[in-house]
Amino acid sequence: MEKEAILELLNESPMRVAELHSIFSEMNVVNIADIFKDENKETDLRIFRLLPKSIASEVFSYIDPDEQQMLIEALSDNEVRDIMSKLFVDDAVDLIEEMPADVVKRVLQNTQNEKRKIINQMLKYPEDSAGSIMTTEYVDLSEDATVNEAFDEIRKNGINKETIYTCYVIRRDRLLVGVVSAKTLMLSKQGDRIGDIMDAAVVSAHTTDDQELVTQQFKKYGLLAMPVVDTENRLVGIITVDDVVQIIEEENTEDFEKMSALKPSEEPYLKTGVFTQVRNRIVWLLFLMLSATITGGIIASFEDALAVLPVLIAFIPMLMDTGGNAGSQSSTLIIRGMALGEVGFKDIAVVLWREVRIGFLCGIILGFINFIRIYLTNGRNSLLAVTVTLSLMLTLMIAKSLGCFLPMVAKKLKVDPAIMAAPLITTIVDGASLWIYFVIAKMMFKL
Amino acid sequence: MEKEAILELLNESPMRVAELHSIFSEMNVVNIADIFKDENKETDLRIFRLLPKSIASEVFSYIDPDEQQMLIEALSDNEVRDIMSKLFVDDAVDLIEEMPADVVKRVLQNTQNEKRKIINQMLKYPEDSAGSIMTTEYVDLSEDATVNEAFDEIRKNGINKETIYTCYVIRRDRLLVGVVSAKTLMLSKQGDRIGDIMDAAVVSAHTTDDQELVTQQFKKYGLLAMPVVDTENRLVGIITVDDVVQIIEEENTEDFEKMSALKPSEEPYLKTGVFTQVRNRIVWLLFLMLSATITGGIIASFEDALAVLPVLIAFIPMLMDTGGNAGSQSSTLIIRGMALGEVGFKDIAVVLWREVRIGFLCGIILGFINFIRIYLTNGRNSLLAVTVTLSLMLTLMIAKSLGCFLPMVAKKLKVDPAIMAAPLITTIVDGASLWIYFVIAKMMFKL
Repeated sequence: MEKEAILELLNESPMRVAELHSIFSEMNVVNIADIFKDENKETDLRIFRLLPKSIASEVFSYIDPDEQQMLIEALSDNEVRDIMSKLFVDDAVDLIEEMPADVVKRVLQNTQNEKRKIINQMLKYPEDSAGSIMTTEYVDLSEDATVNEAFDEIRKNGINKETIYTCYVIRRDRLLVGVVSAKTLMLSKQGDRIGDIMDAAVVSAHTTDDQELVTQQFKKYGLLAMPVVDTENRLVGIITVDDVVQIIEEENTEDFEKMSALKPSEEPYLKTGVFTQVRNRIVWLLFLMLSATITGGIIASFEDALAVLPVLIAFIPMLMDTGGNAGSQSSTLIIRGMALGEVGFKDIAVVLWREVRIGFLCGIILGFINFIRIYLTNGRNSLLAVTVTLSLMLTLMIAKSLGCFLPMVAKKLKVDPAIMAAPLITTIVDGASLWIYFVIAKMMFKL
Repeated sequence: MEKEAILELLNESPMRVAELHSIFSEMNVVNIADIFKDENKETDLRIFRLLPKSIASEVFSYIDPDEQQMLIEALSDNEVRDIMSKLFVDDAVDLIEEMPADVVKRVLQNTQNEKRKIINQMLKYPEDSAGSIMTTEYVDLSEDATVNEAFDEIRKNGINKETIYTCYVIRRDRLLVGVVSAKTLMLSKQGDRIGDIMDAAVVSAHTTDDQELVTQQFKKYGLLAMPVVDTENRLVGIITVDDVVQIIEEENTEDFEKMSALKPSEEPYLKTGVFTQVRNRIVWLLFLMLSATITGGIIASFEDALAVLPVLIAFIPMLMDTGGNAGSQSSTLIIRGMALGEVGFKDIAVVLWREVRIGFLCGIILGFINFIRIYLTNGRNSLLAVTVTLSLMLTLMIAKSLGCFLPMVAKKLKVDPAIMAAPLITTIVDGASLWIYFVIAKMMFKL
């Protein structure tokens, strides 16, 4: 049902409570959460109070942080307690990470003791670690249980668990020993022992593993969920594929931003204020602007040559732009290849040799076209054409080599390779290419 | 178990068949597939023939295309038939799309009639459409069945289905009417009617929907699987989350490549030959090189001014680089925002007004620092400092506006906005900023 139609029903007098109630119970919770977007506190509160109790918490978990805060501030303590009791632990942690301090205080005061302890524990894990993204709601089975007992366990405890399609098999002390899918359970005989039908080859993460490693494992093995263990291999939580999909997009956004000289931000574009945007952009702009003055210095130092042969100036943009583009092509391919685990530091010699050859071939093609163009449009000045063409070819080889070399070295030095992308590579290649250009020009024209 | 250890066992004489067989049955199929990497035909064939029959097809589906081809060429017709009979339909389609014509012929000859028909049907869907990425293995239930009958159906047919965690409810003529999760089934009473416990709010895709739309729905609703229907809402297949994760990464890689002036390629970096790499890069490099000559022409047309005031040249790289960086920041944020569905064409006025203000503020900050630097290092030449600073501020505002405007217009015109990224924006902004610079310089210094 459309948002407009629902708001209309809401505003009729007397309000069509029963009708709205039944509409909400039929709707997808994500679509209900969408209704809250851009509405005022009053409307949000009225909609939320009309939701069937059984889905209210789930709807709440899909609402945008701004509106979540508005709602918490407007709801009674009892209502907040009700949300918190049904919210999955990972969603509760997300909520607390987004809210300002006073709201967090009120939320935690209205959270059951046991759950509050788990939340506080999870907040201690390093940011972007497996521990910080896991949830503690999962089904665990003893290896000595039977399939029948497993189903009883799922029916008894499973209804509040985030995923029941993968059950984890533990031994005493919560030691993780295997995994059994709901599919296997359904296809096994009732009396089968879990330890006999489980899969012992279980792919797990440690609480401190980086989320990037976790997403790579999900992709490699096509998982729906992954268990998280502590240093003694004891099961402490699971990570689910829906969260991994979000994380993959976050990591990609972060790479896109870093590769464009932006300070990464997790806020959507339209929700970020102008001043925050300026802050996210100005540092790199400033650094790169000051670096570019070095290139300016290189040009200035060849002022004499330029005074004698002013036509040289006209080719500066072409050399700078082509070098920057060629370098950014290589760095993007390598940064992306490393992010996807397709390329590693061990390949550096192979990659460099490839890029030198690619740079050489691109240089030949672009140089040839360039030579013809300059020769024809500059009074058949073959000396000038050779100077520009030679510079262009060398620029391409340098750009291609640096474009792959710098990100790989950065990775080796545990610096994020995404920093060694187009903007920085362009600035470095610019300086190098202009220096080469003027040196060649001075030799050619004996300046 | 490590790859090296397994290869050692394989090379012992007599070969430790029983031991290897039992090792393989314990291992994760993805890790087994990894063993095939970079081995010769002989070894690949020996490993494959040692695999337990029950997992051979699944292992095959995870092997790289090169090795898949090598294996098919080496295996007997009977063995190929065995693989094809157990391969999921979507994996079979992937295989056929990757193989050369003669291998495809042999594969299809050894595929069961029924399956071949389905494969041929799926090959007809447009590339990157929902129909081309779906699988036809799923569990469908009649709305009049009971929970008990549903379990019987899953046990009888489910073992070969790609996912059994979401069952689709159909009416006569295969009309899709709802969805019921394995969780709901497990938590319901045996006699409950499927039509009563199903969720009628089912999110589905049409066969011709673009895969980008499909991935957005998966992300929005946190789905594990999504049904695909034809124009008459009849269920024809499902898309599973593991494939969606792959597609998300493919779409991101495509955007990264387009945004760096690369022709997108689906091959991993190290598997793409040098000549193909040159082909993927040269078109944009050439186009942008020729465009940059326009900027060169702009400089050349102000040769007189430069002859009188050669110091102007030194600021060209700084203006060009800063303009390019500022433009690429904006275009990346907007392109990414549109890809994630956070920003749309309807926001164009809001976005433009934001970017103009951001450009103005960044301009003030960078301009101020720049003014001080030039004033101090160029003999307190305040006229020069004002010229460069004013040009810089205008450049930033133009770069920011074009950086958001061009991608949004491209999207509106149904051109991929990723093309309007750093390389093209930089080339355009370069010309504009240098023109502004020289016009201001001529006015200031009355040249």
